[in-house]
Parts: sequence; structure tokens; C-alpha cells
Amino acid sequence: MKQTDIGEKTELVANWQTLQRIFIQPENKAARTALVKYMEQILFGLHDFLKKHVGITRELSLETLSERYKNSKISRNPEKKLADVIKGIIEDIAPHAVNVASPYFIGHMTSAIPFFMVHLQTIVAALNQNPVKLETSKVVSILERQVLAKIHRKIYRMTDEFYDRHIQNPDSTLGSFVNDGTLANLTALWVARNAFFKPKDDFTGVEEQGMAAALQAYGYKRCVVLVSQLGHYSLRKAGGILGIGNANIIPVEVDKNSRMNINKLQDIISNIQNNSSGTKILAIVGIAGATETGTIDPLNKISEICKEHKIHFHADAAWGGPALLSEKYKHLLLGIEKADSVTIDGHKQFYMPMGCGMIYFKNPSIMDAIAYHAAYVIRPGSVDLGIRSLEGSRAAVSLVLGSALEIMGAGGYELLINHGIETAGYFAEEIKKRNLFELVTYPQLNILTYRIFPEDLKIKWQTGSMQEKKDITQQVNQININVQRLQREAGKSFVSRTTLKRTDQADMVVFRSVIMNPMTNIDIICEILDEQEEIYNSQFKI
Amino acid sequence: MKQTDIGEKTELVANWQTLQRIFIQPENKAARTALVKYMEQILFGLHDFLKKHVGITRELSLETLSERYKNSKISRNPEKKLADVIKGIIEDIAPHAVNVASPYFIGHMTSAIPFFMVHLQTIVAALNQNPVKLETSKVVSILERQVLAKIHRKIYRMTDEFYDRHIQNPDSTLGSFVNDGTLANLTALWVARNAFFKPKDDFTGVEEQGMAAALQAYGYKRCVVLVSQLGHYSLRKAGGILGIGNANIIPVEVDKNSRMNINKLQDIISNIQNNSSGTKILAIVGIAGATETGTIDPLNKISEICKEHKIHFHADAAWGGPALLSEKYKHLLLGIEKADSVTIDGHKQFYMPMGCGMIYFKNPSIMDAIAYHAAYVIRPGSVDLGIRSLEGSRAAVSLVLGSALEIMGAGGYELLINHGIETAGYFAEEIKKRNLFELVTYPQLNILTYRIFPEDLKIKWQTGSMQEKKDITQQVNQININVQRLQREAGKSFVSRTTLKRTDQADMVVFRSVIMNPMTNIDIICEILDEQEEIYNSQFKI
Repeated sequence: MKQTDIGEKTELVANWQTLQRIFIQPENKAARTALVKYMEQILFGLHDFLKKHVGITRELSLETLSERYKNSKISRNPEKKLADVIKGIIEDIAPHAVNVASPYFIGHMTSAIPFFMVHLQTIVAALNQNPVKLETSKVVSILERQVLAKIHRKIYRMTDEFYDRHIQNPDSTLGSFVNDGTLANLTALWVARNAFFKPKDDFTGVEEQGMAAALQAYGYKRCVVLVSQLGHYSLRKAGGILGIGNANIIPVEVDKNSRMNINKLQDIISNIQNNSSGTKILAIVGIAGATETGTIDPLNKISEICKEHKIHFHADAAWGGPALLSEKYKHLLLGIEKADSVTIDGHKQFYMPMGCGMIYFKNPSIMDAIAYHAAYVIRPGSVDLGIRSLEGSRAAVSLVLGSALEIMGAGGYELLINHGIETAGYFAEEIKKRNLFELVTYPQLNILTYRIFPEDLKIKWQTGSMQEKKDITQQVNQININVQRLQREAGKSFVSRTTLKRTDQADMVVFRSVIMNPMTNIDIICEILDEQEEIYNSQFKI
Repeated sequence: MKQTDIGEKTELVANWQTLQRIFIQPENKAARTALVKYMEQILFGLHDFLKKHVGITRELSLETLSERYKNSKISRNPEKKLADVIKGIIEDIAPHAVNVASPYFIGHMTSAIPFFMVHLQTIVAALNQNPVKLETSKVVSILERQVLAKIHRKIYRMTDEFYDRHIQNPDSTLGSFVNDGTLANLTALWVARNAFFKPKDDFTGVEEQGMAAALQAYGYKRCVVLVSQLGHYSLRKAGGILGIGNANIIPVEVDKNSRMNINKLQDIISNIQNNSSGTKILAIVGIAGATETGTIDPLNKISEICKEHKIHFHADAAWGGPALLSEKYKHLLLGIEKADSVTIDGHKQFYMPMGCGMIYFKNPSIMDAIAYHAAYVIRPGSVDLGIRSLEGSRAAVSLVLGSALEIMGAGGYELLINHGIETAGYFAEEIKKRNLFELVTYPQLNILTYRIFPEDLKIKWQTGSMQEKKDITQQVNQININVQRLQREAGKSFVSRTTLKRTDQADMVVFRSVIMNPMTNIDIICEILDEQEEIYNSQFKI
């Protein structure tokens, strides 16, 4: 049998020659053309699909899909060539993925991204730099410092002199990239913990000796972090990880506008100071764009309280941070410049691909509290960015953000931010016009919550007893759960749902809508509301 | 003035029309052709550069480079179009980045990656799924479970029945993706901490109540983790973050082959058990591929000790894990299947782009110890992968690893693994042949360390007093520091350096070489050694 008789299978047997070829620059035109052709398929084949499908379709149930992915064996020989992998992803994966780029997908903080982001991410992969150390990144480490300074400046608006001094100074750290907002919040509280429980006398610091020794050295029984009840769950998780205990991440009630209730905050602080001398308030977190409601806590007031009591002030602006680029709406974040640390996510409102959390610090030396060194990299005195960083090896995402800022300009981002906020405003007005719905949280930024609340039940609720109100809320909750699910399963559009805790009444299930796609306009929003009305009328109307 | 007179600048002013265009599928052929052309430039423009430059050149000093990146202002208007950004990266960034893909770059665990990896990473960006929840990933979450099971199976070799039961069972967690090995090690110790300090009586668990309460509830003063002195610094960092205290990550001396000395380990355990009743040994870490020396700890023996004392056994196989795909060398990792948790990095020996750390657990329920829920996603009972995960939002890198396994097959990876190990062996033999050098750690995998040790100094050292030996070592260290730096700055090749601690003598500076590029062969290695000899002879020979 001649080799050609064996056909394609031969090529798929792993051998040293083909293996070497995939690592080197192809010199022949055919190979180069093929590699470019694959990119074309990726760019447009995937997007052709994405134009067709919307939301989380029910075409195939999870169970059916799962059955296809139950083989746990790695084949000894290659199974597919790149061309087949791409074809398979376009034909078998993409149709069952979620079209987060659809303008009808208004349920989560994952969105359409500009086309150029895909190119920028490809550059990151092709260069494969690792900013943990200069020896695997060089200029990319320097660029990263610049990009961090650019965002830092938008937050803190320090002087030219400040940035000239710190931007490329290896002893200064204006911030750090991490994979997501969860890790950014973790880094913020890690730094705050270490900065407070620093070495003194015989105690060599919490990082070295641990939480139990730290509390003992400082004469406390526990430390706590105060955050609005709408705080992201990653703050509780950070408390758990850091050995603080997530029960010590204490929720502060919100006011009727879903913003931290400052009176309640002050009550909690007074209560701690008067009644539990063994408790240290380590940090207060102000949210700039709550995950569920998009609301912004009163940052200025929180900053004053933190200053008065010498408490670390962390602003979780994972969502809202990029609004600082909007001249029209940046005032909403006033007070953020007083925060000791600020979380911002690039893969949210900087419209980057996944994997760009960021943490910023007002004090360029405070990250010294988490510095690590090793013998083979990040040596003392080196300029390696890995010295002060939660993560070690990581992708050079600063190349994406830095380039995106150049391509979009602050003005381009402002258009996106303003569109989101203003469209959410129209959305809210539209909800108010419709009798079937109730607007639950008015959008301060571009997130709002609402629910179906049929008129007859509204009337009953107003005059009902406590028990009747509770029963009605549960009935209404169930309607909203079902309508949300049916709309999602119909696959045309997607609004998420959440449950808001109410101190004076039963928990309330609401639709949660996130407007972050420039193609999402009021017409589309009306279609989505129409669909919800139709589902309600056909299935639940009595 | 007509609009066309304003020229290109007009296009660069952010406006709503152009902004919308970048979010949608271009319909006209010219736009599509341009986007594909950019991909071609990225694929080959960057690599054309990479063919030319090697290592960390000194053409421009860090100070000069830094001066170029000192503007901290974000322009209001767009500054560049995508075409200019790509051109700028090819012409201004890439030449000053580090050519990690060069076969002469044998200093770190960052390497050439196969061409197809760039395509796969592009797919991840184009789909922009977020596996934190099903609603932003659907089939990608299911695929991720499959890929995790495939690697789990290579480590633990459980039965078909085991994988059938757990692979797509939302209550089971075989492992988790994180951004890097640091976060994987952190996750392992986080889980181990929580699994031990679980709720009992009035105590609701360490995650909820924190480290101080946990130690008190269980009657301990501190808990410790034992790891070879060659353990990665991320283990100390994890101890610091978790509130255990990094001083409680206790180094165990290594034997003459740089593997954990089991007698010393047993001494430490006995000592703790006999003399410090307040100390709990939380975990013992066995390294499978030490960062500095590539050595593998005696995993079987460590597992026996862990079993005897009921201690969590964590294997840090960030580097060595993929050797499990080599039929020829997988025996080196024997015992890893007994580890309670295993770290493996995809961006190391799976040759993936940055950003693929993984943590695996033998017990599919143990990650329940770190479960979190929220009201808007990862609700109890949901199948969202974010329930048991250090990170929240993250990229769908399982698409890259899963596809790479299909394209390479286990056999393809075996060829790469074997090439690394065997080339490192030849390298070691070559060093032994050369009088100027001394082999310090023989490569068990594909990492070795050696140093320049001139013959006259070797002779003096052998007969020297303690003080003379110390002085000679310091003199030799300085030579190696300087030769390494000069070679790096010459920009032709790159070998890293580290400092190995020796209990019976002074710390030793060594060259550290990592062989993970299929184009690196013994001829190239000889060139690199020749260059080191030349630098020594021309600059330091007396």
C-alpha cells in the first residue's frame, strides 16, 4: 500500500516533522494562505452564526448536549486538523453557545465587542509575552505601566508631576491587572488587610504570621468589612479566602434608591465602636455600579466616614468605572478619587474580551504590603511587575486596553457609556407606561430592574394584610420566574433575573436588564417587553 | 470646506455611526478584506520580526524605552485606526518585546507556541463566552467539563464508570480553570484549609468565621504546610493570602538530587507532633517539576506519609503535569494519582498562550468547601461553573486546550515532552565535557542548572578552608551573574539565572535552562555554551 492510499489519516499521525512545522513561520505561499483563510472563517464564520442565533435557545436540551461531551479519553493520535476544528466550532459549538453579541441579549454584563478587539487579542496570543517579569515581556511591561497610569489618572486626577514621578518608577505601583473583578476585589482587601496588620514589635505582619496572630498582636477578636447589601459576592468570597471570614463581610442596608443607607452605615459603626471593642473595621466598600441594579453608593459620604475613622475605602467600580470617560456622566462617580483602592473591569464597559480585571491604588507604595520575591525572577531590586501582583504568569492584556484607548479615544467610549445610560432611561420610561409592569430600580447607570405585576394583583396588594401581601409577592415572583425562563428558552431575547432583598417586605424576584450594546435601541426593548407581555397573557393571565 | 478636505482626521473623530459599524458584521467586501488583511499582518508581520530578534536585546536601554511611555493622558479623540495600531505594534512594540519563540531563548517557561494556538485563541475572543454561568456560555460550560475530565483522567486514571458518573454531573467538580499556577496552588490550599476546618458544633467553618475562629474551634495555635525548599513562591503567597501566614509554609530540605528529603520531612512531622501540640499540618506539597531545577519530589512516599497522618497531599505539577501524556516518561510522575489536588499549567507544557492554570481534585465533592452563590447567577441548584471557582468571569480557554488535544493527540504532546527531556539530557552531557562548566542539577525533566566554575578555582576550592570556599563561591557567583547578564544583553540567546540554597555551603548562583522549544537542538545548545565561554574568556579570565 502506497502512502497516498492511506489518505488523510496519515497526516494526522503525530510525527516529528509535522510537529516542527507548526512551530515555525511557514515559508510557502499555500501554507500562509491557508492560515489566513482560517482566520477569515473565524472572523466571519462565527459571526455569520451569531447573526442568526439569539440568546440561550432550547433547541437542544442541556441533557442532550451533555451526552455529546461525555468522552473523557484523550486520543493517542491527532483526531482533527485545524481546519476541521474550526469547522467543528462553527457548526457544532457556536450554534449552542450563547450569542452575547445580540442586541436582544440584555441580561448580563457580557456583550458584543468591537471587531478590532478580536485582532488585538490575536496580537496578544501571537506575541505571547508574560508580564510577570521583564525577561519575558520587556517593552510590554513598560507599556503596561503606562496603561495603568492612564486609567489611574482618570480615577484620581493627580498632577502631571505625580504621574511623571510614578509612571515608570519600578518602586511605584499604581495598579495591577488580574483576570477579573473578583480577583481585583480580593487584591484590594488583601492589601488593606496587610497594610493595617503591618509588622510591629515582635509581630512580623499578617502576611507572614497569619490572621490569628495578627488579631492577637493588635488586640482584636475579629475584623470586618462593611459593604452595601448589593455588594458583589466576590467581596464575601474575598473575606473567606483572606481568613477574615465571610460572615465578617457585613451587609449595610440600602435606601429606597438601592444606594447604601449612610445612616445605617453610621449605626453599624457606632454599634461596633460602643459595643464590640474587639472588632476592627478594616474597610468600607462603596459600589459604583451594583451588579444587580447598577446603582452607585454615596461615595463622597463614605469617603468622609472612612477618613474620620481611618478606614480603608475601597470602591468596587468593576462595572461603572469606565463612566469616568464620559464628560456627561462622570459626575455620577464623584468621590471615587478619594478611594484608597478601585476595581475596574476591562471586559465589561471597556468592551474588551474576557480576562481584564484591574485594581488601582491611590498610594503608589501601598502594594508593597503584598510584595513577593523569588530567586529566579522578581528578585529584590528588579523591575518585574510580578513583585506586586496576585497572579504570576498572565497575558499582556494591557496591549488590548492600551490600543483600544487609542482606537476609541475617550470620546468613543463616552458615546457607548452615554448610549447605555440613556437607553436604560428610555427603557425605564417605557416600563412605567405599561400597566403590566412595575419599575423596581430606576437606572442610575445602564442597569435597571423591573417586574411583571398585574394590575389586579397590584390593587389587592395595596389593601392587603401582611400575610396577603406576602402571598401576592410570592405569586408574582413565580410569574416572573416563569416568564423569564420561557423567554430565555424561546431563544429570541434574554433578560436575566435576580432576587432583591427587601427589609420591610418579602424578597422580590425581578427582571434585570443590562444595556451595553450600541445596537440595542428602544425599538428592540419594546419588542422584548412585548414578548414578555405575550408570554404572560398566553400562559398566566387568569 | 467639504468633508473630504478634512482628510483622514475626520474618520478618527469618534462618532456614533462609525462606532456602530465596529460592532456589526461588515457586509461589504472591502471591509471584510481589510479585516482579514490585518489578521495576515498579525500572523506574519509579528513573526517576521520574531525571526530576526532574539532574547532581550540591549539596543535600547530600559530608561530610553521608558521615556517613550510616559504620557498618562487618554486622548479625547481617537488617535489611531486599527491598521496603524497593528503597524505600530509590529514596528515599535515587537522589536522591543522578548522573542520567547526563539530556539535560543532557553531561560524561562514561556516558549514558542504552535501557530494553531493563535487561531484557537482568536476563536475564544470572537465568541467571547463567559463560563462563570450557563447563560453566557451554554455548550462551552459543557465542553469545559469534558476537557477537565480528560486531564483528570490522565492524572487519576479512574474507571469509565467514575467518569460517566461525574463528567457532566453538575454536583461534581473534577477541577477548575484559573488564570495561572499561582491561582491553582491558592485554590488547592484554600480547599484544603476549608475541608479541614469545616463546620462543627457552634463553629460554622473557616470560610465563614475566619482563621482565628477556626484555630480556636479546633484547638490549634497555627496550621502549617510543608513543601520542599524548591517549592514555587506562589505557595508562600497562598499561605499569606489565606491567613495561614507565609512563615507557616515550611520548607523541607532537599537531597543531593534536589528532591524533597523524606527523612527531613519525617523529622519535621515528628518534631511537630512531639513538641508543638498546637500545630496542625494542613497539607504537604510534592513538586512535579520544580521551577528552578525541574526535579520531581518522591510523590509516592509523600502520599504514604499524608495517608498515615491524614494530611492533604497537593502535587504542584504546574510544570511537569503534561509529562503524563508521554508513555515513555509518565512513570516519572508515579504517585501523582494519589494526590488530593494537582496543579497543571496549560500555558507551560501544553504550549498554550498565557492564561491557562488548572487545578484538579481527586474527590469530586471536595470543592463544595469553597462554593458560593448569588441571587443573579450561580444560584443554588444551577449548573453554573462559577459556583465552585476562585474566579468569576473568565475566558473560555477550555476551547483552546480541548482543540489542542484533538489537533496534537497525546502522541503529539509526547513528542514535545520527550524532545525536551532528551535534549536536556544531551545538554547535561555537553556541560560535563566542558572544563569551564559544572553541572549543578542533572535534568530529571527538561530543566537543568549549571554554572561556570573555572578549573583553577575548582582546584583551590577542593583544598580550601571553609572561609576560602566561601570566598571562592562568591567570586564564582559574581562571574556567573555577569556572564548571564552580558549574554542576555548581547541579545543572541537567553539563559536565566537563579540562586540555589545549599545547607552545607554558601548559596550558589547558577544558569537555569528550560528546554521546551522543538527547534532547540544540541547544536544550538553548543552555540549558547560557546558564547558563554567566549564572554568569560574575553572579560573575566585572569
